[in-house]
Amino acid sequence: MAPSPRRFIGARGSRDSLPTPALVIDRDALRSNLTAMRRLLCGTGVSHRPHLKAHKCLEIARLQLESGADGLCAATVGEAEALAALDTSVLLTSVVASDTNIARVVELRARGCDLTLVVDHTETAHRLSDALVARDRAADVLIDIDTGRGRSGCSSVDDARRLAEHVQQLPGLRLAGLQLYAGQLSHMPDPAERERAHAEFRNLVTRHREALADLLPAAPIVTGGSTGSVALDLRDPVLTEVQCGSYALMDVEYLAMPFSADVAVWPFGYALTVQASILSANWDGHAIADAGDKRFASKYGYDPLLTRVPEGIDLATSTYRPVSDEHGRLDVAPGRRPPPGARIECVVPHLDPSINLFDVAHVVSGDELVDVWEIDARGA
Amino acid sequence: MAPSPRRFIGARGSRDSLPTPALVIDRDALRSNLTAMRRLLCGTGVSHRPHLKAHKCLEIARLQLESGADGLCAATVGEAEALAALDTSVLLTSVVASDTNIARVVELRARGCDLTLVVDHTETAHRLSDALVARDRAADVLIDIDTGRGRSGCSSVDDARRLAEHVQQLPGLRLAGLQLYAGQLSHMPDPAERERAHAEFRNLVTRHREALADLLPAAPIVTGGSTGSVALDLRDPVLTEVQCGSYALMDVEYLAMPFSADVAVWPFGYALTVQASILSANWDGHAIADAGDKRFASKYGYDPLLTRVPEGIDLATSTYRPVSDEHGRLDVAPGRRPPPGARIECVVPHLDPSINLFDVAHVVSGDELVDVWEIDARGA
Repeated sequence: MAPSPRRFIGARGSRDSLPTPALVIDRDALRSNLTAMRRLLCGTGVSHRPHLKAHKCLEIARLQLESGADGLCAATVGEAEALAALDTSVLLTSVVASDTNIARVVELRARGCDLTLVVDHTETAHRLSDALVARDRAADVLIDIDTGRGRSGCSSVDDARRLAEHVQQLPGLRLAGLQLYAGQLSHMPDPAERERAHAEFRNLVTRHREALADLLPAAPIVTGGSTGSVALDLRDPVLTEVQCGSYALMDVEYLAMPFSADVAVWPFGYALTVQASILSANWDGHAIADAGDKRFASKYGYDPLLTRVPEGIDLATSTYRPVSDEHGRLDVAPGRRPPPGARIECVVPHLDPSINLFDVAHVVSGDELVDVWEIDARGA
Repeated sequence: MAPSPRRFIGARGSRDSLPTPALVIDRDALRSNLTAMRRLLCGTGVSHRPHLKAHKCLEIARLQLESGADGLCAATVGEAEALAALDTSVLLTSVVASDTNIARVVELRARGCDLTLVVDHTETAHRLSDALVARDRAADVLIDIDTGRGRSGCSSVDDARRLAEHVQQLPGLRLAGLQLYAGQLSHMPDPAERERAHAEFRNLVTRHREALADLLPAAPIVTGGSTGSVALDLRDPVLTEVQCGSYALMDVEYLAMPFSADVAVWPFGYALTVQASILSANWDGHAIADAGDKRFASKYGYDPLLTRVPEGIDLATSTYRPVSDEHGRLDVAPGRRPPPGARIECVVPHLDPSINLFDVAHVVSGDELVDVWEIDARGA
């Protein structure tokens, strides 16, 4: 029903013809982030399997594969179903436990998807194996280890060993390695604290690798890691593979932290903004634009970060924050009134739960719309 | 790519075959809410124009029209575009100011949509009129009045009069009434405070109706109101029309408040839940299920409200809250471990920004799936 924004592709200045609120991806900044990650990984021996959950967009997943990624991660069964279209190796990083969702992953395997699964409980491992065997398509599995968050995984080395021994007996499962995802490291603003927590994490990884060495294959997958810990994950690595996803687009909550204890500035810049239009400007010092709570998700309390304001308004002293589902408030210097209809843009506070609030991303280069990408797995 | 949940329609116990996380609408509770609203409105002389923004689902909008609603409200141009499919009267409650979005509403009018718009600024009124005249499809407009939130609307009676006089001179616009949306009344937990604030609001409405009486048509539209204020809006009404949307499905943040100073219990019950499956249960006293931040939006800090837990777990002493994008934590009595794969259901904290996180709603009656509805305007 809505007119397609594709009609603006290639028109001069078409970035300002987008129907707002609009999700905008800067193609050149995205490419630069992919290149920066390739440089970081170069020579480390660590593989990269980016998380679809960060962007839910198959076009970006394709660019990540072209840029050297070894498959993709999915956080949900629905994301794995979307990734099956790419004919690549997919790791589903969450346990699957309900019969309905086990049937879905078995169907993916039966259709030939190169799908690796995680397990953290003998009972679910058993049901999974039975269902895979019934379709004659065994799957690689990783033992998921609790890294201290109580969120998933085996909660002791002994439990992990017992589960690994059990998996070895199950005809539908092939033990391929370990997953240790330490999400708590992602957003520690103090780099020294992040270093200390990462050292503990390294010990945990090493303990499990050693304790399970006789059960694991010769070159096991040991996967984990995020954009927030990649500086440490690549230093004398204990993981064989990192799952960083946010690096491609970035957000306020990453950019507000230093990259590492030695390097303040991130090698990745923001490549994603939300564009909004000023609707109401009946007050001195503030105006209302058409992007609110339904366009920006925040996790740690940050506001959107303005990157563009109307002519005559000072960017450095202006702020923007959602004030209702569909509206946000632009505060500007006293006495100023931005004109109705003018455009603003903001980086989102938290990337993952923001990008899935939109149907499509408008891909721009400079002030020109160059492509429109679906957020394919937005509800998945 | 994902198998359609429609295949489970009509199967006995199919509510437990849903691919989780799943949005669930209880058909009988929804119908009961629609009937309860019809009873409340009966004999008041007040029209009802429910807000699509609450549910973004055309099937629910159709049921609301069948149940006596006089058209629908849209919060965004995209929602108005979706509603055009229903061949009903549509009020776009937000100002439209960018040239791109003005072109979209003009296109809707040109295609015959019975669309009413709001204006709060002479300059945007002017541009809107010019664009409508160019396509020979004038539109009804309401003067939007700031109810004290500084979010949209004219900020004084004098400004409202000046704008109304201006609108009368514009060939593309027909002055049809006033909009006064007092969103601040929606979630005031103290009913006495809500009464006081509502009395102020009534004065504001009356002042504007009287001051603009000579400019407005004989039977002007005076629209506003929400589920949170409807008990007061219908008592000796000053609005001609209420915009309540949440009443159809309800959420934790409404149900946690009393309905009015005299009536604690709402005439509307919850009709929407999120169903999740237990994934990991390796700890005494808590388990992890597959619905996190990306499935529950909160506005005032409430957690999801559990309505169903696995057998052997006590509902009254259990709680659920998101702990990451795709995971939530079910806390249960010490020593208990809910079985992996078992189902739980929760009411969402805040309805509007939660329902748009899903592609479809699973409509159930008792333990049976009876229909699957698209969340049509979820990204709009």
